[in-house]
Amino acid sequence: MNSFGMKLKFSTFGESHGTAIGCLLDGVPAGLKIDEEFIQSELDRRKPGKSEFETARKEDDKVEILSGVFEGLSTGTPIAMIIYNTNQKSKDYTNIKDVFRPGHADFTYFHKYGIRDYRGGGRSSARETAARVAAGAVAKLMLAELEIEVLSGISEVDGIKSEVYDYEKAKTSIIYALDPEKEQAQKDAILKAKSDHDSVGGVSRVLIKGAPKGLGQPLYYKLDGVLADAMMGINAVKAVEIGDGILSASTLGSKNNDAIRAGGFESNHSGGILGGISNGEDIVMNVYFKPTPSIFKEQHTVTTENEEVDFSLKGRHDPCVAVRGTVVCEAMAALVIADMLLLNMGSQMDRVTKYYK
Amino acid sequence: MNSFGMKLKFSTFGESHGTAIGCLLDGVPAGLKIDEEFIQSELDRRKPGKSEFETARKEDDKVEILSGVFEGLSTGTPIAMIIYNTNQKSKDYTNIKDVFRPGHADFTYFHKYGIRDYRGGGRSSARETAARVAAGAVAKLMLAELEIEVLSGISEVDGIKSEVYDYEKAKTSIIYALDPEKEQAQKDAILKAKSDHDSVGGVSRVLIKGAPKGLGQPLYYKLDGVLADAMMGINAVKAVEIGDGILSASTLGSKNNDAIRAGGFESNHSGGILGGISNGEDIVMNVYFKPTPSIFKEQHTVTTENEEVDFSLKGRHDPCVAVRGTVVCEAMAALVIADMLLLNMGSQMDRVTKYYK
Amino acid sequence: MNSFGMKLKFSTFGESHGTAIGCLLDGVPAGLKIDEEFIQSELDRRKPGKSEFETARKEDDKVEILSGVFEGLSTGTPIAMIIYNTNQKSKDYTNIKDVFRPGHADFTYFHKYGIRDYRGGGRSSARETAARVAAGAVAKLMLAELEIEVLSGISEVDGIKSEVYDYEKAKTSIIYALDPEKEQAQKDAILKAKSDHDSVGGVSRVLIKGAPKGLGQPLYYKLDGVLADAMMGINAVKAVEIGDGILSASTLGSKNNDAIRAGGFESNHSGGILGGISNGEDIVMNVYFKPTPSIFKEQHTVTTENEEVDFSLKGRHDPCVAVRGTVVCEAMAALVIADMLLLNMGSQMDRVTKYYK
Amino acid sequence: MNSFGMKLKFSTFGESHGTAIGCLLDGVPAGLKIDEEFIQSELDRRKPGKSEFETARKEDDKVEILSGVFEGLSTGTPIAMIIYNTNQKSKDYTNIKDVFRPGHADFTYFHKYGIRDYRGGGRSSARETAARVAAGAVAKLMLAELEIEVLSGISEVDGIKSEVYDYEKAKTSIIYALDPEKEQAQKDAILKAKSDHDSVGGVSRVLIKGAPKGLGQPLYYKLDGVLADAMMGINAVKAVEIGDGILSASTLGSKNNDAIRAGGFESNHSGGILGGISNGEDIVMNVYFKPTPSIFKEQHTVTTENEEVDFSLKGRHDPCVAVRGTVVCEAMAALVIADMLLLNMGSQMDRVTKYYK
Repeated sequence: MNSFGMKLKFSTFGESHGTAIGCLLDGVPAGLKIDEEFIQSELDRRKPGKSEFETARKEDDKVEILSGVFEGLSTGTPIAMIIYNTNQKSKDYTNIKDVFRPGHADFTYFHKYGIRDYRGGGRSSARETAARVAAGAVAKLMLAELEIEVLSGISEVDGIKSEVYDYEKAKTSIIYALDPEKEQAQKDAILKAKSDHDSVGGVSRVLIKGAPKGLGQPLYYKLDGVLADAMMGINAVKAVEIGDGILSASTLGSKNNDAIRAGGFESNHSGGILGGISNGEDIVMNVYFKPTPSIFKEQHTVTTENEEVDFSLKGRHDPCVAVRGTVVCEAMAALVIADMLLLNMGSQMDRVTKYYK
Repeated sequence: MNSFGMKLKFSTFGESHGTAIGCLLDGVPAGLKIDEEFIQSELDRRKPGKSEFETARKEDDKVEILSGVFEGLSTGTPIAMIIYNTNQKSKDYTNIKDVFRPGHADFTYFHKYGIRDYRGGGRSSARETAARVAAGAVAKLMLAELEIEVLSGISEVDGIKSEVYDYEKAKTSIIYALDPEKEQAQKDAILKAKSDHDSVGGVSRVLIKGAPKGLGQPLYYKLDGVLADAMMGINAVKAVEIGDGILSASTLGSKNNDAIRAGGFESNHSGGILGGISNGEDIVMNVYFKPTPSIFKEQHTVTTENEEVDFSLKGRHDPCVAVRGTVVCEAMAALVIADMLLLNMGSQMDRVTKYYK
Repeated sequence: MNSFGMKLKFSTFGESHGTAIGCLLDGVPAGLKIDEEFIQSELDRRKPGKSEFETARKEDDKVEILSGVFEGLSTGTPIAMIIYNTNQKSKDYTNIKDVFRPGHADFTYFHKYGIRDYRGGGRSSARETAARVAAGAVAKLMLAELEIEVLSGISEVDGIKSEVYDYEKAKTSIIYALDPEKEQAQKDAILKAKSDHDSVGGVSRVLIKGAPKGLGQPLYYKLDGVLADAMMGINAVKAVEIGDGILSASTLGSKNNDAIRAGGFESNHSGGILGGISNGEDIVMNVYFKPTPSIFKEQHTVTTENEEVDFSLKGRHDPCVAVRGTVVCEAMAALVIADMLLLNMGSQMDRVTKYYK
Repeated sequence: MNSFGMKLKFSTFGESHGTAIGCLLDGVPAGLKIDEEFIQSELDRRKPGKSEFETARKEDDKVEILSGVFEGLSTGTPIAMIIYNTNQKSKDYTNIKDVFRPGHADFTYFHKYGIRDYRGGGRSSARETAARVAAGAVAKLMLAELEIEVLSGISEVDGIKSEVYDYEKAKTSIIYALDPEKEQAQKDAILKAKSDHDSVGGVSRVLIKGAPKGLGQPLYYKLDGVLADAMMGINAVKAVEIGDGILSASTLGSKNNDAIRAGGFESNHSGGILGGISNGEDIVMNVYFKPTPSIFKEQHTVTTENEEVDFSLKGRHDPCVAVRGTVVCEAMAALVIADMLLLNMGSQMDRVTKYYK
């Protein structure tokens, strides 16, 4: 259950404060050029400690490929990647050893497994997402060969919404802001929350360009369903919307339908997906992150013995988990699209025949 | 790819205007009392033609159990259920034979499969959801034994939002409205759209009561991720939110965290799920439906030969697909919870040992 | 758990003496010509009651396609097929209602599920294999487009071994015998056992011609592993061997290795599979069936209350289950090969790129 | 496709001459005591270079646990284990760089992936089985808590068959021989082949004691089918037989059926499995290994350019791969049984209800 994908499957392992985290990526077609520098650069985009907008925990997040690559090319066998944890700071978690942090998975993991791995969230920590980004980087290399691109940026922080979606801008913004006009206000909101020992939520907008028509397996491995699962499964995500999504629920059909012309669709309210299958337009999603549950204000909680306590968290945490989260959204989206491309290959008999003849 | 679930797996088959639709439900524990009347009553809640708020297509939706039940009890073998199509009205679809209906899956299925099953949407028709409701009814029977209940209702139509969520009220409302004060306005909006040859969107709110702590398989078969996939996979759904979802993205951490006391949580912003695992509180979701794409106004579109045409759909369609859709949301939610209950059974070694000794 | 296959997945339902049996076949590429007569002819090869060498239970085994086919072509959606049971003869099983038949799955199903479906073996009956043959027939249609053929025949009955493997002969033999010289002796052995109220075992030999190099997914969805699972999962099968199999365990490496020349292999001890992947040679398997456990001699057994009884079965049963079993072996082999063909399509990046460009 | 199991799933990675090999084991119940010394001792049983009967390649096979274990207990999260390769001897494979070794997977991998990882067999090398043994050791720890034991030994070498099956003896035999009377002859056969630059085949016999009734998921995840897949998937295995297997194909039903008495079965021809489900008796399998394809005699083969050459392999190889292979059989059997135990937990409704109440 620590795996995702059907034809391109990845599995991750590792805990926030264990020896290492990593992933297995299984199903990468043989002969793909594996650009290790690119993989590392993707990890660098996600790694913590780059600015005041992020947790102060510093991790180099150096990735090592253990298998599946030979002479620079994928071999068709599983690509294992490992990232050693270097900055666990074991003292950080002594004050949370017997206490459930409100808003955290501490409570639910304990009740599910009957075991408490109190070291910084253990497996439920967002640290695990570094492994997703490594896998996603390989998926991006595969997509690049097919001229498909996955982009993203922060469209909203603490209710401050972007009015333009400039994905090139987002690449150079330290908070991956999509709207240059709103970036400063969004930054201010993050720093304000931080200085208040609080946190803020945010929204990541993901854009997939160049996906061919026909991706998605009806009716129970639909493109939108799998993207929703992939996004909702990222730490702190609480809602996912495709295309006009929420807005479309209060729109008339005559406005929401995308009319079709010979050259393509006249609009893209659908976000590029109809009936769970891509229609050749841009695929657009919004991913809603709650504020980081790790705050430094005093909160009501209980111990593992169910004693009530007033609790103040110490340690180092992101004031807005959406910021680094948007890099994870991209990675997961790339993995989903790559999986769907491979799955789609047997959908028409004449193309199967052509493939083998 | 027409299957859903891991331990309780269901698969559906059938097209809107074919011979029959149906499902296989595999993994139902043996010895569950199968109440056929209840299953039929769930199908009756979803079936079309009950009122002016729905499509005029009438279907009895009589379900027949073909296997897996003996002397009123499940046997542990697959439960196959079949619903014959009785009212296909083959003339209905002659005017759409070579034309893609805007907003429909016609276009994407054609490009994926290279084949056009023009009979009323074929497999992509919402008619398939009857099979989901049949399977979901069996899941509800299983949940009832564990005192878990899945409820739902319409919380919004055409932007008219419920202020109260009265699930008992919803049971008796012809449009499953949650708010008695808003029901009439919501009905009016539907009839207005209908008389304008248009359609409206809406929102279904789903409530799961009594789910134990610990459901959900981290990190890639999370309860919220799988629910998101299940809901997004329902026809016309474009967004899914868990708990405060969208709102939480603009809330401070100190407000969004649910404080814990010895007797439980002080609030339920999380919607009953933390880290992908249920925390014992009510599980709450909102499911956003776009307006039915099938409208009777003239629209721009193209033929299968990519010729531009102005097109007016004929036939019979729901003016607000969310209404009957809410019954499908319940069914899918019940199937997810039942699957998670079974999957969770091996999570602690001492409970495994106890089970076998 | 009633499903098999990864990309071409089939699921079956139904019990020996229930309303109907059937299958869902999911993942058939769209545009495959579905020859219903061929499917029926395959079922006719397996159906009981054709001769004195088989059970006297007569079933027409008329298959009906419920979905997934439109205007004679597969549409890419699940193909559901149903076969109604017409000759259940409910009186047959009154004498086994509370008694476990030695060698049968009665005992194990009861202990697994705590439920007794005593009607002729219920789900564990070989009757379910009709659904496999229907699915396998569709797989054969797909293989035929790629010039791949699956053949089989009976190579051994009651220890009487074939010395030649004449698959054309087997097609016209009522017991599917491969060796015309041994056919009569094999028939005699079956009739002798029958008149003694006993049963005999046998061996099916399966030949797959024309499979391309490269089928099989290492390391845990290997072609030989999946074939072994598929064959072992057929009722009464107790051993599976690939190529020289058992013999190779007592052969020197220098004799067992198949030397390679420019035009192919010099021998085929490997049975066409190396490292779990097809090598382009004929794929050859032997499938060992135990004697039918349903015999009419008195045997020791116990009741569901664990009381010891001496028991004489009544009813109608095959004296040699291998005979009709060989048709099922073919069907399962065809399904495995078709699945592997589809799975293999993403194994090289340059071919993925070519597919999408 | 590098994963095995449904509820207890393991995935392996790594190549013979890469940086490391390893595995992920997902689904281990939380709270299992993880005895690292035991895991290492299992690896030591399989590791090469222990005697003249094995390859001269020496590997320490020191396993390191990277995740999933905290304070000596499993946490319910994936257990990642890594074994670094220390003795790759890169010069060994220069003479095979462009040549396909007869009997090897070189040929098929090249045709599947279009890539040649010529380093000692790459992924197809039996070295990968060390990762299986590590995973299997954890499964054995789990089985031990339920008093289930998996044993094995060599029952045949080069046609020399054991007449007794003494599993205690096998534990102390350097070739894991089951029959003390035959051990010397079997050893002699191995050394003879070795000195002739040849290799011999052999048979491993596996015994599973204490498995409860009811394991196995009919009809397509049967215990015997999955065991067959698991065994056939081990390098060099060409046949698998359950219980009397091959013999039963030439036995009368009246002899092959295991009569039942109040205290259990009167015989165990079935090898403990009926209808794909365990019946509470010992589970017995025979696993047939071909002779190691790596021999040092001159053989006919071709290059990657399809030029014919006469080829003499150099390097270090096991003269009888069955010897160390029997340890792998045990590991895979343990993994299958553990998976089936977990899968079986939801098979009866009253036990599900009891679990949650």
